[in-house]
Amino acid sequence: MNPSPLIDHAPLRVTIWNEFVHEKQNPEVQKLYPRGIHGALAERLAGPGLALRTATLEEPEHGLSAEVLRQTDVLLWWGHAAHEQVSDEVVRRVQERVWEGMGLLALHSAHRSKIFRALSGTSGKLHWREAAERERLWTIDPAHPIARGLPETFVLPVEEMYGEPFMIAGDAHVVFLSWFEGGEVFRSGFTFQRGHGRVFYFRPGHEAYPTYENPHVLQVLRNAIHWAAPILSAPYPKTHRPESLEPIEEKAGTYGKAGIVTP
Amino acid sequence: MNPSPLIDHAPLRVTIWNEFVHEKQNPEVQKLYPRGIHGALAERLAGPGLALRTATLEEPEHGLSAEVLRQTDVLLWWGHAAHEQVSDEVVRRVQERVWEGMGLLALHSAHRSKIFRALSGTSGKLHWREAAERERLWTIDPAHPIARGLPETFVLPVEEMYGEPFMIAGDAHVVFLSWFEGGEVFRSGFTFQRGHGRVFYFRPGHEAYPTYENPHVLQVLRNAIHWAAPILSAPYPKTHRPESLEPIEEKAGTYGKAGIVTP
Amino acid sequence: MNPSPLIDHAPLRVTIWNEFVHEKQNPEVQKLYPRGIHGALAERLAGPGLALRTATLEEPEHGLSAEVLRQTDVLLWWGHAAHEQVSDEVVRRVQERVWEGMGLLALHSAHRSKIFRALSGTSGKLHWREAAERERLWTIDPAHPIARGLPETFVLPVEEMYGEPFMIAGDAHVVFLSWFEGGEVFRSGFTFQRGHGRVFYFRPGHEAYPTYENPHVLQVLRNAIHWAAPILSAPYPKTHRPESLEPIEEKAGTYGKAGIVTP
Amino acid sequence: MNPSPLIDHAPLRVTIWNEFVHEKQNPEVQKLYPRGIHGALAERLAGPGLALRTATLEEPEHGLSAEVLRQTDVLLWWGHAAHEQVSDEVVRRVQERVWEGMGLLALHSAHRSKIFRALSGTSGKLHWREAAERERLWTIDPAHPIARGLPETFVLPVEEMYGEPFMIAGDAHVVFLSWFEGGEVFRSGFTFQRGHGRVFYFRPGHEAYPTYENPHVLQVLRNAIHWAAPILSAPYPKTHRPESLEPIEEKAGTYGKAGIVTP
Repeated sequence: MNPSPLIDHAPLRVTIWNEFVHEKQNPEVQKLYPRGIHGALAERLAGPGLALRTATLEEPEHGLSAEVLRQTDVLLWWGHAAHEQVSDEVVRRVQERVWEGMGLLALHSAHRSKIFRALSGTSGKLHWREAAERERLWTIDPAHPIARGLPETFVLPVEEMYGEPFMIAGDAHVVFLSWFEGGEVFRSGFTFQRGHGRVFYFRPGHEAYPTYENPHVLQVLRNAIHWAAPILSAPYPKTHRPESLEPIEEKAGTYGKAGIVTP
Repeated sequence: MNPSPLIDHAPLRVTIWNEFVHEKQNPEVQKLYPRGIHGALAERLAGPGLALRTATLEEPEHGLSAEVLRQTDVLLWWGHAAHEQVSDEVVRRVQERVWEGMGLLALHSAHRSKIFRALSGTSGKLHWREAAERERLWTIDPAHPIARGLPETFVLPVEEMYGEPFMIAGDAHVVFLSWFEGGEVFRSGFTFQRGHGRVFYFRPGHEAYPTYENPHVLQVLRNAIHWAAPILSAPYPKTHRPESLEPIEEKAGTYGKAGIVTP
Repeated sequence: MNPSPLIDHAPLRVTIWNEFVHEKQNPEVQKLYPRGIHGALAERLAGPGLALRTATLEEPEHGLSAEVLRQTDVLLWWGHAAHEQVSDEVVRRVQERVWEGMGLLALHSAHRSKIFRALSGTSGKLHWREAAERERLWTIDPAHPIARGLPETFVLPVEEMYGEPFMIAGDAHVVFLSWFEGGEVFRSGFTFQRGHGRVFYFRPGHEAYPTYENPHVLQVLRNAIHWAAPILSAPYPKTHRPESLEPIEEKAGTYGKAGIVTP
Repeated sequence: MNPSPLIDHAPLRVTIWNEFVHEKQNPEVQKLYPRGIHGALAERLAGPGLALRTATLEEPEHGLSAEVLRQTDVLLWWGHAAHEQVSDEVVRRVQERVWEGMGLLALHSAHRSKIFRALSGTSGKLHWREAAERERLWTIDPAHPIARGLPETFVLPVEEMYGEPFMIAGDAHVVFLSWFEGGEVFRSGFTFQRGHGRVFYFRPGHEAYPTYENPHVLQVLRNAIHWAAPILSAPYPKTHRPESLEPIEEKAGTYGKAGIVTP
């Protein structure tokens, strides 16, 4: 019944998780991200108020031990080729930390990651095409903290296409919509909440394009990290409360103590 | 690209699933539900336009084979003591059918069932007390199809208490709120959608009380079955669409066919 | 406390309202809609189960007397040049009928009509361009009743552009998103509810293009009429309830009957 | 197309508006609020980071000139007996400031104020009873910034009852639910957004009870003021954009410049 412990971290503790597969297998991707997408993001998002670390699939427990998660305020997740190699145990652990209050940023193809699917309750299915096409993003809720400082519209000269219908939950609050050269539209940036934790999905970020060099994209991620920071961090309350707060009338003769009908 | 196959079943095919544990273990519950909660519901919900069948945990595949699910328009789910005995395979199968369009009614302690948790993305945690207390339900969206014919308020003389905070997803559209004698309130009836499928959670229905004899409760379930009937029934679209719908400008010299930067 | 009167009209009574200004002022528009947009819609939406009538701005009370509204289940609204000539009294009357349960379809430039603004609580502002450009609509909730029979995507060869950000309320449930040739995206079809009444906004329908000949557009309107039909039709309940439903403890000595502190 | 001007006020400029009628007409209310509800709130909410001022109905322009509103980040509104005496012009002005980004806290009987009705699009109808009864509030979204530091439940020993159904818009995000001794429940604290502005409704605050002495109630208001502070402050964009961002194919021979069909 007491207020939950409030969080006021300085600095904010951020863990950037990346499956780190394409960068090792594809020389072209390696040229774009020589230290991996996680490395590039850690470098480019660095700044006052943020304590950044990285974690990858190949580390023990994928780098996401209970201790690491306990000390993470906001987790970024980039995955694509190796969704199924992420252990169910780690996914459950991450999900529980989100329920407790940890923020989660699901990036690009994380729409099909186990953790996004577990939190949204959907499959995250969509249409896609890799054709080096122009993506134009629109900021449709300019007053949202994640849109802070963003222009009304901005262009990514080449990106992979993701198209609607996108199978997401009904409480997605859409901040960014995308227009694609090839004719599709997409809900590219949206928030939702599960338990105490805030989740943000952001579409751009295909490994074969220099999207994470774009200053607007980096600004969205910076804003989203601050937005997703926990207000409180505690397990969701769940109590057997045999004593009532208000008086309950005796109903003896009809129902016994356990509530079972008695003659 | 073609319209999905429309559904216009007559009659509507309803499967009532019950773990069927308390009724066999507790003589008092057995007195209330001699043919099981599933049996009582099948009997009391029977009527024109509905083809009802039942399924229970102890049957092979819990009575929910792929074939049974394929022929089910709306599934009712009552579980409590045996959530963890439900196989993950069956849960995944049910979830996929919901995504395709099958309606789901999660009853009472199904808030902690694997299927409710998988679809909502939450743990379904809440507070509770079993003290034979009065529950008063309020219809807060009287224009919702599930509220059709229901009074503004009605009383269940004895029920188990479920109390807030209730860990559910943000797109829960609340139709019924409960007041409890002992001081709690609860979002007792709400809808949400995942993929093509409609889900309704309804709180009342503790095994130790004659809740499923209450005509208002039965009316809510009847309304909800009709509301949850599929509009269409098809897997969510998900297509690799290499050819674009609108022309994409050549960007040769910067990005190759696979979209990789080339010199 | 009694259930509200249920509605089960056959046929459904539909009133198509049009300001009917452009058709009389612009010969090119007149060629497209010689009997007005209302006349064209009345003709093309006619079918079993629907009793259609029309009303226009120039009629007494704009053709929307209390009696006409009382006998209307679903109202379609097309307005653009004459929003400010619609009397506040008629707008209030329409709003109250929506609160009672009447459905409303706001078409195209009705986004700036008094009635849309009054019901959504916003200004309905957006960007626009009239350049005969291609609009491609996407059905993003294919399981919604309004999407029944619609393809995943369809094209209007020439339309006016409406662009985001579009100032609408947060409970807009989006069924259709638009892609425009010129680079914009738009939430082109969405629903919301106010009181007992269901509202659907649908973007296409510029007076200078033959949009209301498009079979998909007509199908959307037909579906929406059926979707918006009232479940019940009654003023929202609002009661001074001096007697409580559950016993209230005496608190004499501190607060008197009117609740005022007394010594 | 440029980013909107960001707001980073220190201190936050808060205007507390009160109709100030009951306090002058009813000696018992005057005893509770000798300097008016606005005066009591200004005194009790004072603290670092807040610049508070008050305004009342009887002042010229109700104390809400364009200049005052321009310099207000968050507006609190208490009204009951004199809703209809508030000028439509001032209401429109306040509504436009909310659309621009100003926060609004609608208190207690402000559910029937012109401004609440204009922003929500509903009538704000509900049931009520003044019987000095116990109200118990539940924090159902403990991770919301407005719930910061609040316990899971707290009691107001005597309050007026407000009961469901409460006619509000579908995007109300509920933070607090109330239980009443007399049997009702109520969505007592909820947020929504219109344009750039954030709105919070909070139920408790009947003039005949010392509700605004309750430390939890004051904490809710303090939290809500900070939550409702503008992210940006600018009119919603609305542009005629004759030049497109992406190339539009010539469609000469079918549609002329104005988009009208030509032979």
